[in-house]
Amino acid sequence: MLPTEVSIFEVGPRDGLQNEKAVTTAAKVALIDQLSAAGVKRIEAGSFVSPKWVPQMADSAQVFAAINRSPGVVYSALTPNLQGLELALAAGADEVAIFGAASESFSRRNINCSIDESIARFIPLMEKAKEAGVRVRGYVSCVLGCPYEGEIAVTEVARVSEILYKMGCYEISLGDTIGVGTPLNARRMLDAVAARVPVEQLALHFHDTYGQALANILACLDTGVRTFDASVAGLGGCPYAKGASGNLASEDLVYMLHGMGIETGIDLAKLAAAGNGISQALGRPSGAKVARATAQN
Amino acid sequence: MLPTEVSIFEVGPRDGLQNEKAVTTAAKVALIDQLSAAGVKRIEAGSFVSPKWVPQMADSAQVFAAINRSPGVVYSALTPNLQGLELALAAGADEVAIFGAASESFSRRNINCSIDESIARFIPLMEKAKEAGVRVRGYVSCVLGCPYEGEIAVTEVARVSEILYKMGCYEISLGDTIGVGTPLNARRMLDAVAARVPVEQLALHFHDTYGQALANILACLDTGVRTFDASVAGLGGCPYAKGASGNLASEDLVYMLHGMGIETGIDLAKLAAAGNGISQALGRPSGAKVARATAQN
Repeated sequence: MLPTEVSIFEVGPRDGLQNEKAVTTAAKVALIDQLSAAGVKRIEAGSFVSPKWVPQMADSAQVFAAINRSPGVVYSALTPNLQGLELALAAGADEVAIFGAASESFSRRNINCSIDESIARFIPLMEKAKEAGVRVRGYVSCVLGCPYEGEIAVTEVARVSEILYKMGCYEISLGDTIGVGTPLNARRMLDAVAARVPVEQLALHFHDTYGQALANILACLDTGVRTFDASVAGLGGCPYAKGASGNLASEDLVYMLHGMGIETGIDLAKLAAAGNGISQALGRPSGAKVARATAQN
Repeated sequence: MLPTEVSIFEVGPRDGLQNEKAVTTAAKVALIDQLSAAGVKRIEAGSFVSPKWVPQMADSAQVFAAINRSPGVVYSALTPNLQGLELALAAGADEVAIFGAASESFSRRNINCSIDESIARFIPLMEKAKEAGVRVRGYVSCVLGCPYEGEIAVTEVARVSEILYKMGCYEISLGDTIGVGTPLNARRMLDAVAARVPVEQLALHFHDTYGQALANILACLDTGVRTFDASVAGLGGCPYAKGASGNLASEDLVYMLHGMGIETGIDLAKLAAAGNGISQALGRPSGAKVARATAQN
């Protein structure tokens, strides 16, 4: 059965902007405030990672300090380690997120350790977050394919998801990092994970690199999954660059859901305006088809 | 049940290029020949309409004369009237297409007559085509919404489709001209039409203006419908212009279908190369996400 309402987890300000140079703190704050004003209830607002590695996120504490905290909105931060968690807590993040890969090669190439080692390193962070009363979200990457390995076994996705869940993550976001998935394998993957982790604790994070994200979500809508990650204006990689991350544009997702009578609590016109604002700041057209179709000029 | 194979009706060379200025005859011929070499079996190659109205299609006879006719490939032409049919027959079109709107306002504003009058005018053409042994395809536009009226009753879509079918059209292509449809209303519309016209004689022609085309197709895949219209490289309107027609890119559709194990007979890499070639001739990036994701540069 289709849900009557779902939750959108907006990743634009972090996942979307982390590879963008020259976005001012003021532009990030304006984006986040426009998102909350549009009715978005869950916003990944920044990342507390070493500025040596991701200088674009070096101002996350300033962003958290400057945003207009809207009641009922959860402002989240990515925290790669205990130090990041402490900075996030000091900045007032409402919840934090950690990550693991479903691909051994991806894990080794990106963070130079095995999947299990990478997850074990989060144990002190999980303990500290629990102490602080802050919920932790877990991202699993490469759930439908890996740039190095190709296909990934659904059993491995389910195994990593279950570990993160049992460690205490309240929600596991399943990421098709390279966007290669199609509807049937997306559904198979979700079913396999849902056999190990309650489906209400799962989120789908599909990329639109090959144009498949909405179809993949549609294929999974009747499973009981209720949370979908998306990025306003499709932020997260230029649509014309090879290897563009190709985040699904929140506007296109909300358009589909509303058209199906599924509530999100989001005002689509305001959401598109937020996306158009940050696209203008980036000096390029919005990556959301809905935004381009409804543009006034 | 999902189909094991489907038929792609490629509309790029006609529907896609009809609004493009400055595409040479040679570029059109090259595109069509690349499409057939990629395994596309049905190609709308041109339109025999007054060059006063659509000067971009004035060279359709030259295109038909110059293409390399691949065995088993059907080369189709749009024919708005009897004169157009005669030109198409002289040019050697394998089949022709006529059109009607499901929206009364759209019909009146675009061709200055009612839906029923517009269809009745095709009767002499249908007779002549039958005499010549040439099959006729019928397009119905505005099946999921009209720029003037908004929502369109599915009963009206079914009525117009049935008229065209009973007049002798072998296939009715249901067009979401402005791309506003979402999965549930796309499915409702198809079900309504399939109650009046055998579903095997229906084709879906969804536009991606709001990013919904693949999801809409997915929602209809288990109905028995077997033909899907698409346009290589998403030809048919600049992705950044308001009112862009927003054709669904054939590459993105084929990627989804192949990923689901549904055969099309098309070589996706060759299809993308055809799309990249014409995009280069047009001086802009391909509108197919698959093409951009797999580009070598």
